[in-house]
Amino acid sequence: MLVHSVRFIRTMAKRQLLLLSSSRVHGCEYLEFAENDICELLQKSKVSKILFIPYALKDMDDYLRTVEKPFRKWGYKVESIHNSNPLEAVNSAEAIFVGGGNTFRLLKTLYDLNLIDPIKKRIEAGIPYIGSSAGTNVATIGINTTNDMPIVYPPSFKALNLVPFNINPHYIDAFPDSTHMGETREQRIEQYFEEEECYPVLGLREGSMLYVQGNTAVLKGISGAKLFKKNCEPEEFKVDSDLSCLLK
Amino acid sequence: MLVHSVRFIRTMAKRQLLLLSSSRVHGCEYLEFAENDICELLQKSKVSKILFIPYALKDMDDYLRTVEKPFRKWGYKVESIHNSNPLEAVNSAEAIFVGGGNTFRLLKTLYDLNLIDPIKKRIEAGIPYIGSSAGTNVATIGINTTNDMPIVYPPSFKALNLVPFNINPHYIDAFPDSTHMGETREQRIEQYFEEEECYPVLGLREGSMLYVQGNTAVLKGISGAKLFKKNCEPEEFKVDSDLSCLLK
Repeated sequence: MLVHSVRFIRTMAKRQLLLLSSSRVHGCEYLEFAENDICELLQKSKVSKILFIPYALKDMDDYLRTVEKPFRKWGYKVESIHNSNPLEAVNSAEAIFVGGGNTFRLLKTLYDLNLIDPIKKRIEAGIPYIGSSAGTNVATIGINTTNDMPIVYPPSFKALNLVPFNINPHYIDAFPDSTHMGETREQRIEQYFEEEECYPVLGLREGSMLYVQGNTAVLKGISGAKLFKKNCEPEEFKVDSDLSCLLK
Repeated sequence: MLVHSVRFIRTMAKRQLLLLSSSRVHGCEYLEFAENDICELLQKSKVSKILFIPYALKDMDDYLRTVEKPFRKWGYKVESIHNSNPLEAVNSAEAIFVGGGNTFRLLKTLYDLNLIDPIKKRIEAGIPYIGSSAGTNVATIGINTTNDMPIVYPPSFKALNLVPFNINPHYIDAFPDSTHMGETREQRIEQYFEEEECYPVLGLREGSMLYVQGNTAVLKGISGAKLFKKNCEPEEFKVDSDLSCLLK
């Protein structure tokens, strides 16, 4: 386990990840709340063109139009993987943006097209990875804490493993006056910890994102996050909190 | 397809299913809202003892205590499968109650213990099946429209296939004033219909249940349901609606 951790930390020393809870926040345009952090990351790596991975939604042409809008405004070209040879597109990508939608569909497509290892290799080489919602889920160790419906059956729930924990995007607290009897988000996450194989879960509230740079991680955005660990009380983190401990 | 349907209808001619959206409804005790329908079904089949399947929750002893309470009050003994040889318990069951919890955990356990076919055979032979929430999900053709988190990886999303459609338990309408940007329940179900392999989805509101007797199906309980089909407008159904069309 220790050997694995040391190797993991070494191969991931150059990673640059911006993992958004969601692309939309109430009252803002698409990706608007994250503009500064996205642009800073892309500028730092001298990126001019972004490879967009739209597999989480069905209408990928329409999805591309949505995504192009903010990136164009900020001075970046966007090329979608569904208009290219997927493997070549990944291998030559300067930066990758993986959009939200259905996590099962996204992960299954990445497996079907044999893109898991090629994407990992690009991230290990240091190109920026920006993920939103489902695109954040697949960046983590597994999709076990997605909120999505299992509309298709992927060959595994294991994901890109760019970080050694899980994320729950769109994290939301229980409504105290709710009469709905379905499990709350927190109860669902607690069920995950009852299983033998489980990892910490970072509940990212809408408007929050995790910025991972090598072996440091900081919470960014306009809202906070809640960290869940097996047999521990959940812990609240505010914007700008250092979460590098999660990478160890 | 037609041959399959005819065979399916014939083998399921004796099925008796009571598929509850949830076991708890705001303001009621556990299973209280369904007392009349549960007791009527069990009396009709001269059942004295129920086999409880608690695999959807971790603490099965505690779960058994919860479930025993109402059934004892109504005059029925409850035996839990986790205290018996599972296969023998299924093969000799007079009636089965499958409780809610995590659908992935429940389905995986049924596969791991090789109980899928034995349970189907008992239902084909005519013993009553009562399911709640996750227990309702696994009774259908597949678990693709569960609300639960994929905390464990089952060998398939295909389920008991006691009915040839899907159910979404705890169905809830979108809150018009919500600022949350995650998909609504309806949007999640619509994503399912974008996939090639998909079946109708009955959204059972909490407090509603589907009573299936051979080739007839009626909506029961204290609330309604919403039926979703590919390329169709969703359709509302009130309590007592005939939904036998779903079985064809």
